[in-house]
Amino acid sequence: MQRTYDELVAQARTLTAERGLAGFTVEELCDRVGISRRTFFNYFPTKEDAVFGEYDTGFPQKEQDEFVARGAGDHAGLSPTLLSDIARLVITRARHNDFTRQRHQLFRDIVRAEPHLMAKLMAVGESQQRDFARLVAAREGLPPDDPLPNAIVGVTLSLTFQTVDEFFSDDNDHSFEELLERNIAIARQFFGQPLRLPDPTARPDPTGSP
Amino acid sequence: MQRTYDELVAQARTLTAERGLAGFTVEELCDRVGISRRTFFNYFPTKEDAVFGEYDTGFPQKEQDEFVARGAGDHAGLSPTLLSDIARLVITRARHNDFTRQRHQLFRDIVRAEPHLMAKLMAVGESQQRDFARLVAAREGLPPDDPLPNAIVGVTLSLTFQTVDEFFSDDNDHSFEELLERNIAIARQFFGQPLRLPDPTARPDPTGSP
Repeated sequence: MQRTYDELVAQARTLTAERGLAGFTVEELCDRVGISRRTFFNYFPTKEDAVFGEYDTGFPQKEQDEFVARGAGDHAGLSPTLLSDIARLVITRARHNDFTRQRHQLFRDIVRAEPHLMAKLMAVGESQQRDFARLVAAREGLPPDDPLPNAIVGVTLSLTFQTVDEFFSDDNDHSFEELLERNIAIARQFFGQPLRLPDPTARPDPTGSP
Repeated sequence: MQRTYDELVAQARTLTAERGLAGFTVEELCDRVGISRRTFFNYFPTKEDAVFGEYDTGFPQKEQDEFVARGAGDHAGLSPTLLSDIARLVITRARHNDFTRQRHQLFRDIVRAEPHLMAKLMAVGESQQRDFARLVAAREGLPPDDPLPNAIVGVTLSLTFQTVDEFFSDDNDHSFEELLERNIAIARQFFGQPLRLPDPTARPDPTGSP
């Protein structure tokens, strides 16, 4: 079952990237995988659903449980190893065997061939971002709509996506870990600076002086 | 000319949000604005282009010049007021009079009515992100493809978009500045933590201990 499922997703993605969704039929997809049309619909309601599959880029349950457990104990403010533990989660995810240049490029090709899939892909991404924020909220003992987990997950994903793009660029010869560590170091430097905002009641100083 | 242009964009957006692109004709749009179909095509090649308009959310040239000038002078690493100056740019942008809940909601409605516009909207967003990164690179005296400006602009935009969503949420009673300052404070706390990554040659420690 799982093997048929995986094969359907892989072939549906390849065909979509090559020809667009309208460029192949469910029958053609089934022929490639060696199943009947009827069997196909036991797996997916539509061709488009096969392209997405579970789109599982979440974290395994065991890693999630460990991540939450490591936030236990008394602490004022954030749990003390939050930054390191989040970086470890991201690195562990990047070591999974579906994290390949080929898969990365495939999704670019799919969206190029079928721009309307972008909206669905973004909805999936937003739902994963919410799951990640809920995980951080659970660990930190915060309500799920607290702005803190959202802000932390947002900046983490921003650095992660940049790291993924750099890692898969043609001229890269660094490891994912090295690139992520460098990007976190940039954010540490940036957010370590003093912050002086303009007087809230005044318009920003037109001379631009602090 | 500018007034006709603005009116065409405003009406095209309202009509798209209400009915989708296919739900109105160029003629109908022209009737609302009081111009001929022929005049329309002096402004825009297609109905879709009118929906986007210039989509100008960039920073005014004067603010850009001041921002770059304030990075001058000797400094090791980042220019010392980079964080504050970027926060000021974002706040100044949020004080423009097109930064309204109505406009924010309009773009959500447009994308809901026409999901395929999402791909174009994302391309516009990516191009603005590159412009912003080039501005930071110019100020810091870095080459345009340096990872530092990209990482800084990425985390800045992540916090900015979260702040915009919070600012326009129904139950918000804080100023944009207050919300942005709070979100920057969260990032400062997060990135101020010590960072310990797993040994680069080893698999992540399955026990999860540091």
